[in-house]
Amino acid sequence: MSETTDLTASLDPAAWTCPAPLSEQSRVVMGHGGGGMLSAELVRDVFAPAYGGAVLAQAGDAAQLALGGVRLAFSTDSFVVRPLFFPGGSIGDLAVNGTVNDLAMSGARAAYLSCGFILEEGVGLETVSRVAEALGAAARAAGVEVATGDTKVVEAGHGDGVYVNTAGIGLIPAGVDLRPQRVVPGDVVIVSGAIGVHGVAIMSVREGLEFGVEIESDCAALGGLVDTMLAVTPDLHVLRDPTRGGLAAALNEIAAASGTGVVIREREVPVPPAVANACAVLGLDPMYVANEGKLVAFVPREHADAVLDAMRTHPLGTEARIIGEVVEDHPGMVVARTGLGGTRVVDLPVGEQLPRIC
Amino acid sequence: MSETTDLTASLDPAAWTCPAPLSEQSRVVMGHGGGGMLSAELVRDVFAPAYGGAVLAQAGDAAQLALGGVRLAFSTDSFVVRPLFFPGGSIGDLAVNGTVNDLAMSGARAAYLSCGFILEEGVGLETVSRVAEALGAAARAAGVEVATGDTKVVEAGHGDGVYVNTAGIGLIPAGVDLRPQRVVPGDVVIVSGAIGVHGVAIMSVREGLEFGVEIESDCAALGGLVDTMLAVTPDLHVLRDPTRGGLAAALNEIAAASGTGVVIREREVPVPPAVANACAVLGLDPMYVANEGKLVAFVPREHADAVLDAMRTHPLGTEARIIGEVVEDHPGMVVARTGLGGTRVVDLPVGEQLPRIC
Repeated sequence: MSETTDLTASLDPAAWTCPAPLSEQSRVVMGHGGGGMLSAELVRDVFAPAYGGAVLAQAGDAAQLALGGVRLAFSTDSFVVRPLFFPGGSIGDLAVNGTVNDLAMSGARAAYLSCGFILEEGVGLETVSRVAEALGAAARAAGVEVATGDTKVVEAGHGDGVYVNTAGIGLIPAGVDLRPQRVVPGDVVIVSGAIGVHGVAIMSVREGLEFGVEIESDCAALGGLVDTMLAVTPDLHVLRDPTRGGLAAALNEIAAASGTGVVIREREVPVPPAVANACAVLGLDPMYVANEGKLVAFVPREHADAVLDAMRTHPLGTEARIIGEVVEDHPGMVVARTGLGGTRVVDLPVGEQLPRIC
Repeated sequence: MSETTDLTASLDPAAWTCPAPLSEQSRVVMGHGGGGMLSAELVRDVFAPAYGGAVLAQAGDAAQLALGGVRLAFSTDSFVVRPLFFPGGSIGDLAVNGTVNDLAMSGARAAYLSCGFILEEGVGLETVSRVAEALGAAARAAGVEVATGDTKVVEAGHGDGVYVNTAGIGLIPAGVDLRPQRVVPGDVVIVSGAIGVHGVAIMSVREGLEFGVEIESDCAALGGLVDTMLAVTPDLHVLRDPTRGGLAAALNEIAAASGTGVVIREREVPVPPAVANACAVLGLDPMYVANEGKLVAFVPREHADAVLDAMRTHPLGTEARIIGEVVEDHPGMVVARTGLGGTRVVDLPVGEQLPRIC
């Protein structure tokens, strides 16, 4: 696969990876794993009908369950990132933080992780050890315990060194109810810091590009930051970590699920100069680039300033800022006000600009 | 990879897949995923030190956890079986039943599953749909809900069509405490039915072999059978589903963890004629062939007859029988009394006779 073809072909999301909707596809394309429209169609048209069930239909980052009288968050992610090690992290860090953050977006502090490895015959055991050690260290940093695991091996040429799956469970605190359906016009949209960093960090090593300064992934566990925010008020409306598909996908999912319109002030969206430069070179829009240590929060207006102040006291929220608001107009749609006073529609991406980013 | 080389080379487990211990290996071999000695070494030498934590050290099929005042079982498995569809089941059935059964071995009825797909670019969407539908049907049959999912796509040539990971959670009933450490001399060893069926079913399609009759996988969810057994008494000592590594691996793990000796009467171990014939042709020992719908139970002697009677009333236990007992002699070792009055040691397999059986 030539990834540079995808990257430089077009700024138009419709041209990425695969333009045709699922109904016109007969085979899996890279975009089905991209967290955009094709991923959503796969869930809607293939998985949801096959599994049935009301829980999957919640369409959040984590399922919210009742079991034995307690409220649990439960989530899973597989990780197929290339390369396995990159500036600021590794597949082991992603495997912990990706799932821990999905739980945190329900307000749950991750308690236990499962961890399944699919190893390719011939990969060095030293590589496996480095991944496992990174995973263990990330788990300790996030305060989550790896409780159970599994390892499978596939023949050389049928994998890619190391794939990792994690699933996680955690308790949802009383009084916390984070769902896109709670979003209402007037809510304030806050982002916890600079966007686009993880995706650009991966690309810089994958394509051997140099952007003057090394860009390190922002990969981090967001449980502590979320606790800080919930200490201000449990009445946040929704949290989302903008991973695959970037901030654009996260905002679109919330707009669609809540039936409200979202307006972003493009100038307020924090994009570091190094990320902006790299995106210009690569033909990417930072709004669509994956993050792994950021969150976007939809907060009732009366709590917004206090939540923002609290976020800025946390090491992962020092650059938090208000980037927009929820409106009654254009329900289900995300619109950006540009620096020049115009507006543009921020679409849900079709596929993924950068395959195998996590 | 030539699998027939592994299969016909030797009946000696030490010759399978890879004879050298982990400490002498520098690269991953197929046997690291086989559920035998190499798998155990990988956990002991790589994963356990990296993760730390007391829960993983329990070394059961599922972790037993306390969360919010309730006792949970939590387990994960990845599935890389080839082919995806086989007589009696599919990777979708295995993905449900494998995890459901791991939970059942803790006495827990599975409540929720997570499900992560790693798809290979180019695989037919119709194939993905068939797997998802099989998975959904198996979940409904097992009474478990698919609560959360994830899909990643890797480039053509970096996967094998469809890999599936599931993780599951369920409540452990009050009074149930199933652990190998509870096994004591005098305990009776019960197997729920014929062994070796799943592995031979996979081999028959993979190698295009004909054994006169089609052998169908025994793939099934064991939660109902376990409930039937626990209704007799919650005081069972340990349950184990003998998947990778077969009955031999399950018995060895329990002997090692309990520090007791296990004696099996070889004539009592139920091996269907078709499985025995296939194993003779392939040079396999049925004791080492994977099962996917059977369990082995270590039961206090005073409850053994009642538990056996109850098992036989359940569709998945009609052929249940006592195959041996726990002794004070040869702690940590499994010995089979042969039909000719002799004895042989039943070793833990080193790797796996049949790679990618689940």
